[in-house]
Amino acid sequence: MDRTCWRLRLAWRGTDYVGWQRQPNGRSIQEVVEEAVVRALGGEQVRVTASGRTDAGVHALSQFVSFRAETARSPEALVAALNHALPRDIAALEAAVAPPDFDVRRWVRRKLYRYRVLHRPTRCPFREGLAWHWRGPLDLDAMDAAARLLEGRHDFSSFRAQGCGAAHPNRLIERARVSAVDDEVHLEFTGNGFLRHQVRIMSGTLMEVGQGRRSVDDFATLLAARSRERAGRTAPAEGLWLVSVELGDGPRVGAEEDLDD
Amino acid sequence: MDRTCWRLRLAWRGTDYVGWQRQPNGRSIQEVVEEAVVRALGGEQVRVTASGRTDAGVHALSQFVSFRAETARSPEALVAALNHALPRDIAALEAAVAPPDFDVRRWVRRKLYRYRVLHRPTRCPFREGLAWHWRGPLDLDAMDAAARLLEGRHDFSSFRAQGCGAAHPNRLIERARVSAVDDEVHLEFTGNGFLRHQVRIMSGTLMEVGQGRRSVDDFATLLAARSRERAGRTAPAEGLWLVSVELGDGPRVGAEEDLDD
Repeated sequence: MDRTCWRLRLAWRGTDYVGWQRQPNGRSIQEVVEEAVVRALGGEQVRVTASGRTDAGVHALSQFVSFRAETARSPEALVAALNHALPRDIAALEAAVAPPDFDVRRWVRRKLYRYRVLHRPTRCPFREGLAWHWRGPLDLDAMDAAARLLEGRHDFSSFRAQGCGAAHPNRLIERARVSAVDDEVHLEFTGNGFLRHQVRIMSGTLMEVGQGRRSVDDFATLLAARSRERAGRTAPAEGLWLVSVELGDGPRVGAEEDLDD
Repeated sequence: MDRTCWRLRLAWRGTDYVGWQRQPNGRSIQEVVEEAVVRALGGEQVRVTASGRTDAGVHALSQFVSFRAETARSPEALVAALNHALPRDIAALEAAVAPPDFDVRRWVRRKLYRYRVLHRPTRCPFREGLAWHWRGPLDLDAMDAAARLLEGRHDFSSFRAQGCGAAHPNRLIERARVSAVDDEVHLEFTGNGFLRHQVRIMSGTLMEVGQGRRSVDDFATLLAARSRERAGRTAPAEGLWLVSVELGDGPRVGAEEDLDD
């Protein structure tokens, strides 16, 4: 029997997970989603793939994953069964039948990541684990100016974690912006893919620009230096949100060599 | 030594509490806040009063509470010590010295409550316990028309829980509105005080109007009937938020007989 290729859109709160990918040391989103799919399909074993990995503690507002299965289900029934089987911190938002050659990694056109900083003197009971709490002053103009230097195709070795398995360090950032949104600061990055910890290292380093510990010129020098040692600390995972993923109708040109770690 | 009267502004997530008031059956916000104040004052025993009670599971974005203490503290030091002592689901937003005759209940001018309905087919991992999830269609125009009938000074016996200890059932609602906000429906009520479960019973009954189970005319008849038996179900506590409390510079005229339960 032919297997149907499914595309799911999921949201999750990453707090209690070791990240997307299966790990020996704790519950991963991948394993919990696979278990839910197996239950929703009445026992058929499947393997679930995501558009990319996310770290432990990172949240997803909208992430695409896919799997292939023989068992027939309507999209509505699949979503309902998945939400019944999934824990409360993971939700299936939609399901759709994808073309047979669908590849949820290679078909990615762009991803939007948002790093959320809660920027006020006191903490907020409703954003525990959902934003990095920063009490001190921040120069948002300097942060935004530095962020814009990231736009374009660059060698992002300065913002690449040790152990990153990507084939090369070049990535395209279409848009990078820093702005105040109520009592938060949002650092937003749109690109076709990101290296391991790239968004968190860029965010942590931009926060040092905000504190005046680095100038915008220093930031430009750092990007050109292609040296992880010179960048700032990796911002805590709890502030990072995968906001959205845009898929094309086939593999992206160059996707082969730009696949995320 | 003279005691200083303090006014605190707090926020809390009500999920894990039995409500504001001390109860034999679980942890109350009141007892946890009192313990934190005692610690912040180095052991001085105090009694903390709020502008009104809130039910188990109800959230507060901004609630005023007060206490009197001999121990001297700056407002900034008090806020810092409180946030150090409080659990992560309660936050002290600000502290200020109040006039000696400050009465946090009688000085209330108005309160804004918001009932949040998550109105979409799928659940949201980030709003678990923070909104009532409703999947079905809702006629928001009918809900808003019915809500507006609540505006003015009325006998709210139809929306008063059994066991409500208020002296009489008359309250003034200055504003009642129902509107869509992104994927939520917000039922907002501004008034100088509310009877026990009043906002939740009004919200639950307005939801029945939204479902077409009651007409706007039926709702008007119900309000005039002054009979709890004819109103709808009490909406779940998890959707209710005390958004803000406005204080005057002295007791509100009529506050004596309108104090909340």
